[in-house]
Amino acid sequence: MKSEFVSLFRRVQEETCATLEAIDGKELFATDEWKRDDIHGGDGGGGVTRVLRNGDVFEQAGVNFSEVYGTMPADLASKLSMPEQEVSFYAAGVSMVFHPYSPLVPTTHANFRYLEVGDKKWIGGGMDLTPYYLFEEDAVHFHKTLKEICDRHSPTFYSVFKEKCDQYFYLPHRKETRGIGGLFFDYLGKDDEKSFALGKDFLIDIGAHFLDAYAPIAEKRKSSPFSPQQKQFQLLRRGRYVEFNLVYDRGTLFGLKTNGRTESILMSLPPVVRWEYQDAFELGGEEKALLEVLRSPRKWV
Amino acid sequence: MKSEFVSLFRRVQEETCATLEAIDGKELFATDEWKRDDIHGGDGGGGVTRVLRNGDVFEQAGVNFSEVYGTMPADLASKLSMPEQEVSFYAAGVSMVFHPYSPLVPTTHANFRYLEVGDKKWIGGGMDLTPYYLFEEDAVHFHKTLKEICDRHSPTFYSVFKEKCDQYFYLPHRKETRGIGGLFFDYLGKDDEKSFALGKDFLIDIGAHFLDAYAPIAEKRKSSPFSPQQKQFQLLRRGRYVEFNLVYDRGTLFGLKTNGRTESILMSLPPVVRWEYQDAFELGGEEKALLEVLRSPRKWV
Repeated sequence: MKSEFVSLFRRVQEETCATLEAIDGKELFATDEWKRDDIHGGDGGGGVTRVLRNGDVFEQAGVNFSEVYGTMPADLASKLSMPEQEVSFYAAGVSMVFHPYSPLVPTTHANFRYLEVGDKKWIGGGMDLTPYYLFEEDAVHFHKTLKEICDRHSPTFYSVFKEKCDQYFYLPHRKETRGIGGLFFDYLGKDDEKSFALGKDFLIDIGAHFLDAYAPIAEKRKSSPFSPQQKQFQLLRRGRYVEFNLVYDRGTLFGLKTNGRTESILMSLPPVVRWEYQDAFELGGEEKALLEVLRSPRKWV
Repeated sequence: MKSEFVSLFRRVQEETCATLEAIDGKELFATDEWKRDDIHGGDGGGGVTRVLRNGDVFEQAGVNFSEVYGTMPADLASKLSMPEQEVSFYAAGVSMVFHPYSPLVPTTHANFRYLEVGDKKWIGGGMDLTPYYLFEEDAVHFHKTLKEICDRHSPTFYSVFKEKCDQYFYLPHRKETRGIGGLFFDYLGKDDEKSFALGKDFLIDIGAHFLDAYAPIAEKRKSSPFSPQQKQFQLLRRGRYVEFNLVYDRGTLFGLKTNGRTESILMSLPPVVRWEYQDAFELGGEEKALLEVLRSPRKWV
């Protein structure tokens, strides 16, 4: 079981990097292997972090594979609805965030994971799109592609996972979602083998095809000219991305607070960010159109 | 009692802004008054946020006065060791963060506050210095000035509050402190009138004199030339400042999660920030010297 998921995640990492290098056309991914110690010492697994920097299209893109295992502390087990005692765990996954240089190319994030804690196992993951300038056709393409993948496995997956995504990627202190959403799923197959098998098939499928949702958008927008004002707006919006990741994102906080590998976790943060008191930025029609969909998530398909 | 503290905090705000404008020599503080609704509706107090932007010395400096009151939700009361039920509260304070443009001028933060929750009242506050390049004489000056203020009130204040500051401004995921420390104090006078009176005298004194710890450093360093590499290192270090404020700072998280005024809370974040995977920055001797004191806090006096 584990080796099947590991093969899947490694393949996703490899194919994703190849696709992004082709879109970028200039820079390649660097590769960084790392090991992790269990909290009681000894082998705790490790991972392979791949990062592309200062490309023609991607200012920074990171694709991280990890396979970690060992002892989960009691307080964390209890947060996962397990008895509050140390328990063995196994977690494998691949996660990625792409920060394009152009404000016309959206940022995207995706992650896929397989977990075993005690005698339970489950599947989780998701992806979302964070445009700085809204092209409605791109938003529709992104959601339509994800829906088609979902529909091959269950008629309810898309609507349930889309709704969860809008709920998850929400910044209460800004009263905005992080972007225009996507899918968010967790604990698939935790309760029975049949739903586990369904979740696994879904994960294999979406792992192989989710880039169809993003790559055509990046290709289409990567060469469009943009203004310094648009770049400025992107830098301010990136501040919101940081706020979400550091204040609310469960994966980030879990990682930082459990002695995870900081560099691989914070690879998700944008390379250059601006904060300004009350965003002294004069919003035009395009910026207002974006904020409107962030304040009231829309049905895109 | 309340009006005495309000006068103190307003005076600190006024004098701080005047001192910073004099150091900056170019820009003035803008003033922004705001109101707050209680969680049950009705008057919940408000504040005055003052911000100086794009100055010759300060890229951004914010000084925020607030006086808020009303109902504290049960879960927050329980976090303050009160019974888990709604309780009335009153909080007045002034908080400030200065982000200089030059990497040779340190960032500093200070806040002073007075709280009443139910039938308890207490005093809190603190300040710390975050240099990007370490001038040992500046660190000594900062701590020596604070120690002199402390010593006028209690022989133990400085050593206790300095220690608490090093503990508080610590980023476990980076194994570093945020800067070279200062003072951190809380719950002064919560238990008896005598210690409250002592705390109040201390607060009045440090409110009037803490800028003596910072202003001479800013004056001394503000005109020194620096290299683009030094500026780059500052932007990366500012990332750590953001990580601390958004992941660990109790005041920031408390504010964001209790419907505080987001713009006044996040005024603490630096205006321009960089993150890079593994900080692809070649550390020289000066950068290494800084990291060393962040990893092992030093006694400066």
